[in-house]
Amino acid sequence: MDFLEEPIPGVGTYDDFNTIDWVREKSRDRDRHREITNKSKESTWALIHSVSDAFSGWLLMLLIGLLSGSLAGLIDISAHWMTDLKEGICTGGFWFNHEHCCWNSEHVTFEHRDKCPEWNSWAQLIINTDQGAFAYIVNYFMYVLWALLFAFLAVSLVKAFAPYACGSGIPEIKTILSGFIIRGYLGKWTLVIKTITLVLAVSSGLSLGKEGPLVHVACCCGNILCHCFNKYRKNEAKRREVLSAAAAAGVSVAFGAPIGGVLFSLEEVSYYFPLKTLWRSFFAALVAAFTLRSINPFGNSRLVLFYVEFHTPWHLFELVPFIVLGIFGGLWGALFIRTNIAWCRKRKTTQLGKYPVVEVLIVTAITAILAFPNEYTRMSTSELISELFNDCGLLDSSKLCDYENHFNTSKGGELPDRPAGVGVYSAMWQLALTLILKIVITIFTFGMKIPSGLFIPSMAVGAIAGRLLGVGMEQLAYYHHDWGIFNSWCSQGADCITPGLYAMVGAAACLGGVTRMTVSLVVIMFELTGGLEYIVPLMAAAMTSKWVADALGREGIYDAHIRLNGYPFLEAKEEFAHKTLAMDVMKPRRNDPLLTVLTQDSMTVEDVETIISETTYSGFPVVVSRESQRLVGFVLRRDLIISIENARKKQDGVVSTSIIYFTEHSPPMPPYTPPTLKLRNILDLSPFTVTDLTPMEIVVDIFRKLGLRQCLVTHNGRLLGIITKKDVLKHIAQMANQDPDSILFN
Amino acid sequence: MDFLEEPIPGVGTYDDFNTIDWVREKSRDRDRHREITNKSKESTWALIHSVSDAFSGWLLMLLIGLLSGSLAGLIDISAHWMTDLKEGICTGGFWFNHEHCCWNSEHVTFEHRDKCPEWNSWAQLIINTDQGAFAYIVNYFMYVLWALLFAFLAVSLVKAFAPYACGSGIPEIKTILSGFIIRGYLGKWTLVIKTITLVLAVSSGLSLGKEGPLVHVACCCGNILCHCFNKYRKNEAKRREVLSAAAAAGVSVAFGAPIGGVLFSLEEVSYYFPLKTLWRSFFAALVAAFTLRSINPFGNSRLVLFYVEFHTPWHLFELVPFIVLGIFGGLWGALFIRTNIAWCRKRKTTQLGKYPVVEVLIVTAITAILAFPNEYTRMSTSELISELFNDCGLLDSSKLCDYENHFNTSKGGELPDRPAGVGVYSAMWQLALTLILKIVITIFTFGMKIPSGLFIPSMAVGAIAGRLLGVGMEQLAYYHHDWGIFNSWCSQGADCITPGLYAMVGAAACLGGVTRMTVSLVVIMFELTGGLEYIVPLMAAAMTSKWVADALGREGIYDAHIRLNGYPFLEAKEEFAHKTLAMDVMKPRRNDPLLTVLTQDSMTVEDVETIISETTYSGFPVVVSRESQRLVGFVLRRDLIISIENARKKQDGVVSTSIIYFTEHSPPMPPYTPPTLKLRNILDLSPFTVTDLTPMEIVVDIFRKLGLRQCLVTHNGRLLGIITKKDVLKHIAQMANQDPDSILFN
Repeated sequence: MDFLEEPIPGVGTYDDFNTIDWVREKSRDRDRHREITNKSKESTWALIHSVSDAFSGWLLMLLIGLLSGSLAGLIDISAHWMTDLKEGICTGGFWFNHEHCCWNSEHVTFEHRDKCPEWNSWAQLIINTDQGAFAYIVNYFMYVLWALLFAFLAVSLVKAFAPYACGSGIPEIKTILSGFIIRGYLGKWTLVIKTITLVLAVSSGLSLGKEGPLVHVACCCGNILCHCFNKYRKNEAKRREVLSAAAAAGVSVAFGAPIGGVLFSLEEVSYYFPLKTLWRSFFAALVAAFTLRSINPFGNSRLVLFYVEFHTPWHLFELVPFIVLGIFGGLWGALFIRTNIAWCRKRKTTQLGKYPVVEVLIVTAITAILAFPNEYTRMSTSELISELFNDCGLLDSSKLCDYENHFNTSKGGELPDRPAGVGVYSAMWQLALTLILKIVITIFTFGMKIPSGLFIPSMAVGAIAGRLLGVGMEQLAYYHHDWGIFNSWCSQGADCITPGLYAMVGAAACLGGVTRMTVSLVVIMFELTGGLEYIVPLMAAAMTSKWVADALGREGIYDAHIRLNGYPFLEAKEEFAHKTLAMDVMKPRRNDPLLTVLTQDSMTVEDVETIISETTYSGFPVVVSRESQRLVGFVLRRDLIISIENARKKQDGVVSTSIIYFTEHSPPMPPYTPPTLKLRNILDLSPFTVTDLTPMEIVVDIFRKLGLRQCLVTHNGRLLGIITKKDVLKHIAQMANQDPDSILFN
Repeated sequence: MDFLEEPIPGVGTYDDFNTIDWVREKSRDRDRHREITNKSKESTWALIHSVSDAFSGWLLMLLIGLLSGSLAGLIDISAHWMTDLKEGICTGGFWFNHEHCCWNSEHVTFEHRDKCPEWNSWAQLIINTDQGAFAYIVNYFMYVLWALLFAFLAVSLVKAFAPYACGSGIPEIKTILSGFIIRGYLGKWTLVIKTITLVLAVSSGLSLGKEGPLVHVACCCGNILCHCFNKYRKNEAKRREVLSAAAAAGVSVAFGAPIGGVLFSLEEVSYYFPLKTLWRSFFAALVAAFTLRSINPFGNSRLVLFYVEFHTPWHLFELVPFIVLGIFGGLWGALFIRTNIAWCRKRKTTQLGKYPVVEVLIVTAITAILAFPNEYTRMSTSELISELFNDCGLLDSSKLCDYENHFNTSKGGELPDRPAGVGVYSAMWQLALTLILKIVITIFTFGMKIPSGLFIPSMAVGAIAGRLLGVGMEQLAYYHHDWGIFNSWCSQGADCITPGLYAMVGAAACLGGVTRMTVSLVVIMFELTGGLEYIVPLMAAAMTSKWVADALGREGIYDAHIRLNGYPFLEAKEEFAHKTLAMDVMKPRRNDPLLTVLTQDSMTVEDVETIISETTYSGFPVVVSRESQRLVGFVLRRDLIISIENARKKQDGVVSTSIIYFTEHSPPMPPYTPPTLKLRNILDLSPFTVTDLTPMEIVVDIFRKLGLRQCLVTHNGRLLGIITKKDVLKHIAQMANQDPDSILFN
């Protein structure tokens, strides 16, 4: 009769939008591992299987690294080409981007590296001239037209094929990693569409970046590759370990920062991060970085456009402006989060959300129209950041480097502080306008139905502010080097202040204000610059920015979006600080009907089916008897339905009046009763229990650390109630004066 | 009657060699925090107190960074001076070390930077000449004499004042961080004596390093500074957060690697590491590194002697020798751990352990006598490593760089591979002898009664092996550049192979083999070299080394020493892979007498005192009644004794026949009975319970993640038994076929 000992298909799996039971998943993996280890002693074949099983994790990491590195390279190259397509086309070969086109040209001079006859602006192609107002208008028109086309394609593709491909994906990945199931979020369609639309969205010139979505792309790679390995396909907990590593690989290729990527995964997105995963993540991140480097998308063997190698020193006094930048970053971060969330809430609750295509087109049109006249908004945001981070050399021809050269350079190669020329002043004005545009438009851009990352716009805002302050400080030091604050360390003709460093510090501050990253932020910036000496300025800015932003609102942008969307995410960082007890949270509440329980050996199939159909609970405690309320175990609704259905089909004589028992042995039955149904194998014999007087802070801690779905509440040994993860989340929301019913959850 | 609501002094503290209850400590901290936050709304003063409380953690980190950085600088400078003292003295000022002495000299030539008239060897001072066999013997004799003197002082000081100051301290710190109490291990005497004896031990020329003990020194600083802050003094869990950060600061100054230090603390030593601690650890590590840099102990603005800035590329084929180095490192690591543990066990179990001073003197004498004739053993081990890591320049005068120069250097500054000269060949022989000496002597050195770190000797072994292999490869490539493996990438006259890189990879491999560090190892080595391009070789070597070493023995050296000493450390990394259940582990065993319980409202003071005196359990479950065995809570022996004693002293009428009750309200009593004693406030109303059928793997997980001291076992709602951390540890030891009674624990 015991053929229920055979696993029934479906038992132990999860429905969509459900939470996984970490304890059960990890137990299952240990069972699996034990079985393979035991078998490995029996035959050589089993031994090989066991070894290959042990190494499959490493192989998977290698594949993830290779795939996400290649995809990142592909995205970089295509986005670069399509961004330039908005301005013109290469007659030497339409597949060349602007820079590449002129590389191959023989007619290019050192002074004007980006001007060559092979590269034709749209005006040149259409009206055969690049001069005059009409040409300008043609170029303007074509720029806007291409931007609209790209944006339209992006939003249509997302809407038609993969609605999950929009946004940055990080809030959802955080939620998934914490143990939630969103089917298709990391699937192959999402991967394909997100990769394509990301290129389109970036090329359209909208105020968004590719860094956040790259994490999503890498996680999709991880999830899809998991299907090739039994160990990871079937186990939700193990798969999440892989996804954590994939997230690290994603950041690694986004910023060229493998260590930063691992720390980002650890600090920001991961929930369960055993040390084994740390090492594997590091491996995946490295492989991804090296794959990208060998693709060499920017032609400079760097992984990102805005890599800089700085070595100019900074002075202790400069910490003051750096902290000012930190305050700016914190203020901007907090402001951005508030306004963006308010706008997104409006989108969710009003008619606005119903017209995503129109919304995207309007925002794109506004961005493109405002962006074209200003060269700093017209160029791609990564290029802008790269230019802002750059320290002016003697031969730099950009406007930002238009200083009045007196050519009395003191030491070898090091340029002294110089008075700003006309170009710098006009650049300052343009940058100030850019700053305003970026600040405003990003609020409306992040959250639209296209892939959109937030790292690059945040960094751009910070970098502009930093550069403005940096140039200001530089000029102040040049003209007033006799002031008390300068004269001790900044003599005339010395190179005291590096505006590029200010841009970098500003970028870190704004990124920190929006995301509330700390260690990983500093390490990412450190890996971007390669100099240990800038850790102190970066850290000062990141710390100030986090403190300021935290004072104005506890949540980072990702947590705010998680809450906005009502994902059941149990934040591991926040301490629960209220003095409530388990009895205040458990169901049933004081005046509710009693807890729905099953008894261990006295209910019929019909009784159980009635309970299942009358309630929607996802699980039921099993007790010795209703009178004693002594707990035996816990059974899941899904397992119960599947098992009863299966028994009715396959097991002879199981009818509605059959007794279901959960004990080891069948209860004594009178003769001529229908055969009984043993369901002990689907019973969880070790349900977690807490007493009714347990403080909620401890309950929250248990839920977080052990990854529970539910916990039973007892009083003096009697079963009293149940607390589910949803109850915990609702209670936390309630205590924080938020709407507890916003949480989407089964 | 309720003045027991006032906290009684001593309730909630721990005895020496006990385990802390993380859940209780964290609850207490939250209560404290809540109280301060609530009060902060009442008055400005309370608000300031609340803010200063919030920032006290950062202040503490700053102080730890400053103190441990300064101590590290002091140790570096003194050790440098005393190491040179073995060879001679500076007449220009006895406080100068050799290098410093000749810096100030006017008679020094560029060729012989280390020879100047101010620096006198002992032979020059005593017999007025430095030439001839007799002078050599005098120098030899003085060298050995100083070494013996330093070693004798070190071991005597340790023995007389601070027995805890010996060894590296990392195994004990791991145990302490996991929640064990060892009073005085991180006290001020240990700090003072360890700092002094560390300098002596390093200077004596023994095969040991200062890096591990620096972690202990930093943790002592952390622990002592905790006493200045109420928040950390009184809470064992919070104090452990600080100690984790202090460990990071220790590694940061030991290797000049702040990020590596934080990852080391996370990966290797810490047990409970919330993200807040990560950020603070990073801060402490940075402050420590910058303090040390401003002290500038080596005069080169580097934090360590063996910092190198490499930029020569490596070829993919070189991964083969790197993996060979990894295998060597793994083999050596496993071998070292086995022999060292066997020797330490012998020391513990035989007469040997009774004569620590004699042992140290004998080992020092052997080391010094064998070391003096060979220049690579005579120099300090960090200097040796620095020389081995170094890439030979054109002007390097050391023997290792004695290549046959043809001076047809191809590109600017880059030297092609050259044939080795006589000096290199003789250096190879000397290095081979050094390797053998280091391998053998380190086994006997680590574990003696003096401060001794293992990082430097391990790195030295690996660096020598690596350099030997590197020079071999270099010569092979020079003489056989037409071989198939070379000719594709190594043309004649090119600089293909960098022996210094091999030394670095070898050092990483051996360090990995001994300590089994992974990410932190790679990051530390990365921070030592500053080049992202060497991460792949380092990672390949570290990975191979860990796999090889793990195949030969699961434990790293620190875990092996923890087990040798029987510390109650619950390893967080190892999965518990056996299929036992909670009922197999719990006390009482099947044939034992029943579990000793208290009832909630029917036992007298005398009954309880009898139970306390007749048993040695450190806590007792409280049940509704003996018949029902329904659990109410758990009370600790220590709290019970203190409370009863206190009540007898202070509370009128409490006599032996008084009823003790743990309920909310006093039980109904017949008239004329003595007053009752309410002890509900010492009762833990939320004891952790598991069912008897819970798999032990889950129980182990709960103990680890929540940091429990004990857990009660129930069956169908009735109390059945108890599992303590000791039971868990014993069970794990038993399952691993180890002696379960070796665990030292209360």
